[in-house]
Amino acid sequence: MGITLVVNPGSSSKKYALYENRKVVLEFRYELTSSGFEVCTTAKGNVQNCRALTQEEYQVSFSQVALEVKKYLEEQGKILDAICVRIVSPGRAFQKHQLIDDFFVRELRRHELSVPLHVPVTLQEIQFARQKFPNVKLVAASDSAFHATMPERARNFSIDSSDADAYDIYRFGYHGLSVASVIRRVHPLTGLNPEKIIVCHVGGGVSVTAVKQNKSIDTTMGYAPTSGLPMGSRVGDIDAGALLQLMRAKNLKPSEAEIYIHTKGGLEGLGGDSDIRRLLDRTSKDDAVARRALEHFIYHIQKAIGAAVTALGGVDMIVLTGTACSRSAELRTMILKNFEYLDVGIDTDRNEALVGLDGVFSVQHSKVKLVAVRTDEMGEMATIAEQSDLPAFGQ
Amino acid sequence: MGITLVVNPGSSSKKYALYENRKVVLEFRYELTSSGFEVCTTAKGNVQNCRALTQEEYQVSFSQVALEVKKYLEEQGKILDAICVRIVSPGRAFQKHQLIDDFFVRELRRHELSVPLHVPVTLQEIQFARQKFPNVKLVAASDSAFHATMPERARNFSIDSSDADAYDIYRFGYHGLSVASVIRRVHPLTGLNPEKIIVCHVGGGVSVTAVKQNKSIDTTMGYAPTSGLPMGSRVGDIDAGALLQLMRAKNLKPSEAEIYIHTKGGLEGLGGDSDIRRLLDRTSKDDAVARRALEHFIYHIQKAIGAAVTALGGVDMIVLTGTACSRSAELRTMILKNFEYLDVGIDTDRNEALVGLDGVFSVQHSKVKLVAVRTDEMGEMATIAEQSDLPAFGQ
Repeated sequence: MGITLVVNPGSSSKKYALYENRKVVLEFRYELTSSGFEVCTTAKGNVQNCRALTQEEYQVSFSQVALEVKKYLEEQGKILDAICVRIVSPGRAFQKHQLIDDFFVRELRRHELSVPLHVPVTLQEIQFARQKFPNVKLVAASDSAFHATMPERARNFSIDSSDADAYDIYRFGYHGLSVASVIRRVHPLTGLNPEKIIVCHVGGGVSVTAVKQNKSIDTTMGYAPTSGLPMGSRVGDIDAGALLQLMRAKNLKPSEAEIYIHTKGGLEGLGGDSDIRRLLDRTSKDDAVARRALEHFIYHIQKAIGAAVTALGGVDMIVLTGTACSRSAELRTMILKNFEYLDVGIDTDRNEALVGLDGVFSVQHSKVKLVAVRTDEMGEMATIAEQSDLPAFGQ
Repeated sequence: MGITLVVNPGSSSKKYALYENRKVVLEFRYELTSSGFEVCTTAKGNVQNCRALTQEEYQVSFSQVALEVKKYLEEQGKILDAICVRIVSPGRAFQKHQLIDDFFVRELRRHELSVPLHVPVTLQEIQFARQKFPNVKLVAASDSAFHATMPERARNFSIDSSDADAYDIYRFGYHGLSVASVIRRVHPLTGLNPEKIIVCHVGGGVSVTAVKQNKSIDTTMGYAPTSGLPMGSRVGDIDAGALLQLMRAKNLKPSEAEIYIHTKGGLEGLGGDSDIRRLLDRTSKDDAVARRALEHFIYHIQKAIGAAVTALGGVDMIVLTGTACSRSAELRTMILKNFEYLDVGIDTDRNEALVGLDGVFSVQHSKVKLVAVRTDEMGEMATIAEQSDLPAFGQ
């Protein structure tokens, strides 16, 4: 147990939470919204308090969080036991939870180009954490660790094995913290312990993971978190020939191509808006571009679920998670239609009742159970930070 | 009807057939085998005759074929009505069957880089055809035309729509001539007319196509024929981030990366051999590398079938075609295991009896019918060449 500061730098937000004995006592959410940068703060028992920020204030968010955390600790006469930072990076070296040291930072810096929306901001947060809390245990919670159990056939690209080994090119998978947090709560929530579970995470990022006996056996994201399914602004899978043609045509360098596939794809590329809620809203007003973008988005999630069913040799439960899935019963319905052939039956009333809540929403006779579970990456990270046997980097 | 010379330049072979009233009267197969270049010739009613070749003779194969064809025509007192060449190239302009003229050739040349194993050799064959038979109708049989019916959600990448349009970046799909030839013969062969068919083509190239009411609604190959599933030596899908990392690490230019993904991937990359028969043989001798390569290969075909089932909302029939599937009952069994959840039942005896033959091999109560059908790209091309309303290029 103890007190842990959890740091979750994402592609379009930075979230912080102070956990005391696994309960959140302070929470900060820095975000770029359509009306600019803002921060929302929640202290234990108080209502949420939001205010606008300058871009500079957004960038140095950690300093403000550190002030508030220190104030809390002083008032309570307590000390900080650990800081835990979410790590989204390719590389076998990053596919486990571990302690952060100079070697870790140096190695992570090598991946700035591959994951331009995550790694640079993460490095910045680590630097702040070490400055502001120099003597506190600093933990890396790996977003790909949960997928380390994937068998070779799912983990390997079909390239020369010696190149894969030499240049560390594997399908690492991401959203691991989210999927782990969801799998951990399936039994407490439903009383069931299904062998074959598919977890579909739809938020800013999108992934579908096949889970067998609580272990990941395959997932849609591969080397970098831009791969797999179309996302808010990430392109998802685009074939290598198409990308190379685009690079030739637009005269893009590899680093420019990285930015392109992170920011010009997905719903943004197809529908001109990365926000699913706004696209659902536009669709309800007969906007054909928005409708086609959503159809495309949903179709590829459905195909990934179909592929995951085959990977598992059947499916007992489909879990929908991620902000968009937790908020929208309509989105869940769209994703799960077309699966009559698997005997998937949605209970419309229950589904509509689950807005920002956890619960089962399949009809009683549905062979495949449908469950909505809110993701809890931050809680998962707080639990990871408590582990006493975390290895040093490279061990 | 009439007399047509069909020219099928592939990535590792060149096949020619002279059709008279839709029957083959002369056949030439030029191939690079493990023992070097060779040509096998079959004249109507005669046994096949094979001989070794130099690389130079392989390159100018068309000249030799033209000699033999002219000899035949002279003996019979007949004239050649058409030459039909298989075209494997990205581009909306090439997604239909049409007449070949100077504009066609100029446009096709622009795609040499994207499809280095097909386009250069095709251009060479076209040049020979125009030299040797200057006044004969020259027809392009498009390998992507069958997929022109794919809906937008399958056809589009999730990139900026204006970039897709400006640079012609779509999922065109290939193996269209093969799939069309198979779909055309499903009813004559089985007496059935299923709504939802999946066609799995496994040869040097590999693809899975979802066919609804005899039209393609999705397929695994995308922009270039190296995408989708792992193949003999083609990499199949590799995520853009992984490819860019590989380019940085190995210092590859885009044109070098194209060659890499065409020649260093698939079974060659994983198992050191692009030939499925040899890998099956090595696996039977407990070769772990070969076994893992085949497991990887099969697994990705299975996932693609699972995704196609979802695209179709169920499946009535799975058709296996392509040289490897036609030859090997063992390969068909490997692909179709793991589909018990769809009620797929293989009749082992019937399956084993179908070596190089067409027929149904599912058990009677199998909900999904399983059919082996030999592909007939060349016959399909002969039929296409007879169409009287083929448009000129760009029309």
